[in-house]
Amino acid sequence: MPTTPTTPTVPTNKANGTDEPLAVPRGLAGVVVTDTALGDVRGREGFYHYRQYSAVELARTRTFEDVWHLMFYGELPDAAGRAAFTARTAALRRLPEEVAAALPVIARASARSGPLAGLRTALSLFGASAGLRPLYDLGPDDRLDDALAACAVVPTLLTALHRLGRGLAPVEPRDDLPYAANYLYMLTGEEPDRARARAVERYLVSTVDHGFNASTFTARVITSTGADLAACLVGAVGALSGPLHGGAPSRALDTLDAIGTADRIDPWIRERVLAGDRIMGFGHPVYRTEDPRSRMLRGIAEEFGGPLTAFAVQVEARVEAILAELKPGRELHTNVEFYAGVVMELCGLPREMFTPTFAAARVVGWSANILEQAADSKIIRPAARYAGPPPPQPVPAV
Amino acid sequence: MPTTPTTPTVPTNKANGTDEPLAVPRGLAGVVVTDTALGDVRGREGFYHYRQYSAVELARTRTFEDVWHLMFYGELPDAAGRAAFTARTAALRRLPEEVAAALPVIARASARSGPLAGLRTALSLFGASAGLRPLYDLGPDDRLDDALAACAVVPTLLTALHRLGRGLAPVEPRDDLPYAANYLYMLTGEEPDRARARAVERYLVSTVDHGFNASTFTARVITSTGADLAACLVGAVGALSGPLHGGAPSRALDTLDAIGTADRIDPWIRERVLAGDRIMGFGHPVYRTEDPRSRMLRGIAEEFGGPLTAFAVQVEARVEAILAELKPGRELHTNVEFYAGVVMELCGLPREMFTPTFAAARVVGWSANILEQAADSKIIRPAARYAGPPPPQPVPAV
Repeated sequence: MPTTPTTPTVPTNKANGTDEPLAVPRGLAGVVVTDTALGDVRGREGFYHYRQYSAVELARTRTFEDVWHLMFYGELPDAAGRAAFTARTAALRRLPEEVAAALPVIARASARSGPLAGLRTALSLFGASAGLRPLYDLGPDDRLDDALAACAVVPTLLTALHRLGRGLAPVEPRDDLPYAANYLYMLTGEEPDRARARAVERYLVSTVDHGFNASTFTARVITSTGADLAACLVGAVGALSGPLHGGAPSRALDTLDAIGTADRIDPWIRERVLAGDRIMGFGHPVYRTEDPRSRMLRGIAEEFGGPLTAFAVQVEARVEAILAELKPGRELHTNVEFYAGVVMELCGLPREMFTPTFAAARVVGWSANILEQAADSKIIRPAARYAGPPPPQPVPAV
Repeated sequence: MPTTPTTPTVPTNKANGTDEPLAVPRGLAGVVVTDTALGDVRGREGFYHYRQYSAVELARTRTFEDVWHLMFYGELPDAAGRAAFTARTAALRRLPEEVAAALPVIARASARSGPLAGLRTALSLFGASAGLRPLYDLGPDDRLDDALAACAVVPTLLTALHRLGRGLAPVEPRDDLPYAANYLYMLTGEEPDRARARAVERYLVSTVDHGFNASTFTARVITSTGADLAACLVGAVGALSGPLHGGAPSRALDTLDAIGTADRIDPWIRERVLAGDRIMGFGHPVYRTEDPRSRMLRGIAEEFGGPLTAFAVQVEARVEAILAELKPGRELHTNVEFYAGVVMELCGLPREMFTPTFAAARVVGWSANILEQAADSKIIRPAARYAGPPPPQPVPAV
């Protein structure tokens, strides 16, 4: 049985000559499914990277399109490449007429289950309408074309669904604006100021990818069957909608609202910590240090300043101090949700669009993972162990 | 780190005190993700079971609703239970008006990417419209209700999309017909004869579940994030649409058509075998013996008799004989596709509905897996190993 190249192997049902399947940690934690050249998260160092570059550094210095190009083609574009790629993707933003015509009913239906259910449906329809073919029937160039088209329409779909849900007409995309600014423009109908567009762009860049999370893994499993690109992305959107995965940057902001004023911070936090409750916006399963995204987003919030930023910084400091007092030795830092919520609020994004905005960036990471996985030809098909009553028992007659 | 109960563990990055992730066979082959009480496939014995009962025996003696009940509740119903469950699920077949209204555009779009892309979109819309909530926010009874509702509408969605794609009006479901007969009725507009309804019912029962395949695993990964039921099913439909997974019972039938006449069997097969080409409808990754589903479906085909069945039996015998001659020692048997195609053709199902018909049964298996997974609270989140150029490298300026 072939194994992942260059990694050590463990005994398997074949290798040890028994029929015993191979047992691994629950939830496949730490189990290596694939090699990737897309990036990694180093939890103990508080560092993550896209290909060979620090993701935070990319967010500081590069456009969303630059990083999209990096993820898809493996290299950052030069000035001419940036211009060409930006123009190429901007030209793909408009929806096919039949998809646009179906959005009102999708918006109406997803009012009851949230914007990710709307994106899931609309992206599925878009893929069908585009006549996407199974990835395994396509060469690398056609796969790339499909992925560029799907990523380019996600902001159009999300903002149109959002506006329709509020009785507003969708705003047509503008191809003279970069990805992030056009996203804000389609959401509000107004061209955003430079600072807000750039703040959202930095958030989007920092959110493109982040290790082998459950939605990325879902996209790869579906890819491994050879399905079309929309099938893979729609599965990923579904996984992201799960509360254990997607989280919700708005929840951290809800916490700030619930605390309300500076004098209430300490009693509110103490009560939660002593009750053993989770405090939204704090803690991460991988980072043992401060979340590097959190640090970057706090910096952006501080550039804007204002009472919300001041209050968030105060709450962060008090949570860390109270934890040090009540649970010494237990480090707990803000995660990406905390300051992402603050930044998006400062940029005028409505709270119900926080997670969809995350999806508008992550679709590029999912797609890069799909493109990488599609170059493999091995289906991802693990095993389960039967643990019910022993079969076969005779089927009783009715 | 907790491990799957009662299974032996292997060293992990935690257990062996290193940061090395755990490498396993490619595609997670043989890696146990979970315990299940839903059933198993015994490839070397040519046997598979649902819970503690032989699946083939269930197909021979029980209704689709009986087996649906078995998968969801863990036991076969008695006569009163069967009547109640059949009535309950039949009452759930009608589509909400807003979903029905959106089907024409979904049918038009999916004409270009196939009926599973249509089901993927329609089921996503249905879930949004039903206001499905995250599985982790629901108790077991509410999860069951969601799963019953979703399974009950799948035949309605599939048949309506199929008819709309051909310019025909959808046929409203009838709640006085059992699942299989109602499916055929909605497809054709005519009540099927007893033999054909029962043949399709036996096929559907035999297709409800089959080990831990890629679509079932996809559904479980999405479930493990706590997403809503539609998100999980839509991901599974996407995985099933992959050519490496869903296969296509129509392909095996296309092979019979391509051979054409009895005198052409031997040269056609010899040419393919000598060229090393795969012969559609033969071979299975798990069964080392005859596929038990194939044996059962051949029996059903032989009950109908006729020239197609005779030809299929002849081709099967010649493939096995020619392989024994040209590749001695290499056993190759018909898989489920081969006689499933024959049976569906004999029952009047159009070829483009073969894989959707498979989905109409498998949705019950997916749902049972989702319900089982939702009782666990551990996210399924494996790892990848970074294998690109070493980071961090300074980000070049544009």
